[in-house]
Amino acid sequence: MDFSNLISEKMKGVKASAVREIFKVAAQPDIITLAGGNPAPESFPAEEIKAAAIDILTNQPTAALQYSISEGYPRFREQIKERMAKKFHIGRETDDLIIVSGSQQGADITTKALINEGDGVVCEEPSFIGCLNTFRTYNAKLYGVKMNDDGMDMEQLEATLAAHKNIKMIYTIPTFQNPSGITTSLAVRKKMLELAVKYNVIILEDNPYGELRFRGEDVPTIKSMDTTGHVIYIGSFSKIFSPGLRLAYLVFDEGIREKIVVGKQATDVHTNILSQMIASYYLDHYDIDAQIEKSRLLYQHRCEWMLECMDKYFPKQVKWTHPDGGIFIWVTLPEGIDTQKLFGEAVEKKVAFVPGAAFMTDAEQVTSSLRLNYSTMPDDKIERGIQILGELLETKLG
Amino acid sequence: MDFSNLISEKMKGVKASAVREIFKVAAQPDIITLAGGNPAPESFPAEEIKAAAIDILTNQPTAALQYSISEGYPRFREQIKERMAKKFHIGRETDDLIIVSGSQQGADITTKALINEGDGVVCEEPSFIGCLNTFRTYNAKLYGVKMNDDGMDMEQLEATLAAHKNIKMIYTIPTFQNPSGITTSLAVRKKMLELAVKYNVIILEDNPYGELRFRGEDVPTIKSMDTTGHVIYIGSFSKIFSPGLRLAYLVFDEGIREKIVVGKQATDVHTNILSQMIASYYLDHYDIDAQIEKSRLLYQHRCEWMLECMDKYFPKQVKWTHPDGGIFIWVTLPEGIDTQKLFGEAVEKKVAFVPGAAFMTDAEQVTSSLRLNYSTMPDDKIERGIQILGELLETKLG
Repeated sequence: MDFSNLISEKMKGVKASAVREIFKVAAQPDIITLAGGNPAPESFPAEEIKAAAIDILTNQPTAALQYSISEGYPRFREQIKERMAKKFHIGRETDDLIIVSGSQQGADITTKALINEGDGVVCEEPSFIGCLNTFRTYNAKLYGVKMNDDGMDMEQLEATLAAHKNIKMIYTIPTFQNPSGITTSLAVRKKMLELAVKYNVIILEDNPYGELRFRGEDVPTIKSMDTTGHVIYIGSFSKIFSPGLRLAYLVFDEGIREKIVVGKQATDVHTNILSQMIASYYLDHYDIDAQIEKSRLLYQHRCEWMLECMDKYFPKQVKWTHPDGGIFIWVTLPEGIDTQKLFGEAVEKKVAFVPGAAFMTDAEQVTSSLRLNYSTMPDDKIERGIQILGELLETKLG
Repeated sequence: MDFSNLISEKMKGVKASAVREIFKVAAQPDIITLAGGNPAPESFPAEEIKAAAIDILTNQPTAALQYSISEGYPRFREQIKERMAKKFHIGRETDDLIIVSGSQQGADITTKALINEGDGVVCEEPSFIGCLNTFRTYNAKLYGVKMNDDGMDMEQLEATLAAHKNIKMIYTIPTFQNPSGITTSLAVRKKMLELAVKYNVIILEDNPYGELRFRGEDVPTIKSMDTTGHVIYIGSFSKIFSPGLRLAYLVFDEGIREKIVVGKQATDVHTNILSQMIASYYLDHYDIDAQIEKSRLLYQHRCEWMLECMDKYFPKQVKWTHPDGGIFIWVTLPEGIDTQKLFGEAVEKKVAFVPGAAFMTDAEQVTSSLRLNYSTMPDDKIERGIQILGELLETKLG
């Protein structure tokens, strides 16, 4: 059937993402995929999750299977609030926290609450494709601000905020950013917050990787410095527990509470309650920090190994980031190399990555950058993949 | 913080629903609540769900805990497609089916794909408050069409479609409707489909209760008669398996496929995969039809008992529906009685119901109708609740 007179304006321009197609290619069994964004499956506490499921389905089956409340399982919310306060100084007296079905839903509900069609959202350039697409489904206007080694360029941010009065939100992943691996410095975080208050815009701080630091000192979250309520914070269990269970949380000022809760309710009523109870049981009976420490060591090893291989196999003209945590490295090739084309050639040689264009506010632009992921591949495949990629780059760069 | 300059137009008018407040009252332990919409917890196959969880977390922990695909767990989709084809003749060659996180999300994603702010959605009057709120969060204009004993009034529907060119969608719950319990007749279903094709609008057919028939013959779903692709169908596991696991599915023509899938992806990436695998395991290893039959018998008993009590205790001027399935009875009092006010008096006497206004496109209007639910209360509480309500009505009607 022809839906052309029926599809909403906001969805007309939104396409299935290029990354989806890449993931289809990358799912072929003989491909070495450095394209993914999955956490290492060996980091999942599967045995403990099973024990939790058995206990809950034995002793509280009705609570785990019946409808529940939109804000989330009360005990789980309390546990997260407590942990956030203790570890990250997050949670002002006038803040609230609700459970959402993954970080992406946190971004979706926040966008619903704030953004009219044509309203502006400032995004890091590059940024997380999933949330760029969420903003696009609201017909938001995306304003890209370039990333420096210490985070978003603050001069460009202020110029952008000053020039465009339609901007309502700044979207940032300040710690071990997806896709760049960059951590925004304390100074830039402070400046960003100052600008958000000055221009009365919301900072949506997305922090899925924040606990995966394997080098250096923690930098305070922007939310922990927020005294006015301008920061909405998304935390997630996807990278430290299990992504398949779709558990994240949104921390926000009480002034936006009603709209966030109604938005959640109108979107999916409530988050899967069995999974909330499993995670809550886990927090009560096991040591999540010890669990996270294991992931950190694993990712540290894989990151350092990939960087070592890149030093060995990549041509000298190629540059890349050196993340202090998270799961991504961002590679910048000399200008003129279109990594979208390079992707096709790499796949023929059985290696996959994500071309940089996917992460841009204008996904059609030609980029000479690409994203590598090190979280799921064993050492030998990391080396082989980087070697093949290095050889391919040598042929390009002479 | 003051968010008044930041909240989106579409969310400005949307409020936490009155029903939420009612549920808070109804959650008090000494209240007999005929207000709910929950399935009977004794109908949940908790033991089987536990067995499924153990098997999956033992043998396929990575698949159950890792990221998964937006369309849903492939085996689960196949099982549902097969079951729908066999039992309900749903699934044209050009239809597709994806898993969503509950029916409400099915409505949310469909609305996202179709509705611009100000576009029209025709709703049954009364209709399901959850979806009314979903449409409101898109700033849709709601057009209520009155319900007759055989479903939506077709003359009023056609007049509405003819008068308002902004209408893109008709929302209907044709079988054992929430809140009225009414089943739309075959003739009305056919007429509705004919009008949808004539005016090129989509019918969103929401069928969460369709399998809970305990009297009479099945009426074909509208989707089963759809030859053009104008019907988008929502099926759900909430009332026949478990609502807490948030599992539903959306069946739609391939012409809208990309927008539905991107909408799902931008909303919550994918539905909880452990729960999808649990339901899939259940369908492979147990007999869901036998399970549903148990619920049917339970609801038949409770419905007949409630109707018997209403015959005994309610004043003669009161009228109510006699559902052939589902979980709701709709009560109409003589005009002039505001059931919103009556609710306060009933709660003082420790009985809760939902006032009719909650289900109206204009939730502020005064109604003399109310919704009763019989799915979760034992016989003695049903009798006591109806008796108290009957006595209260006697004092009103003299």
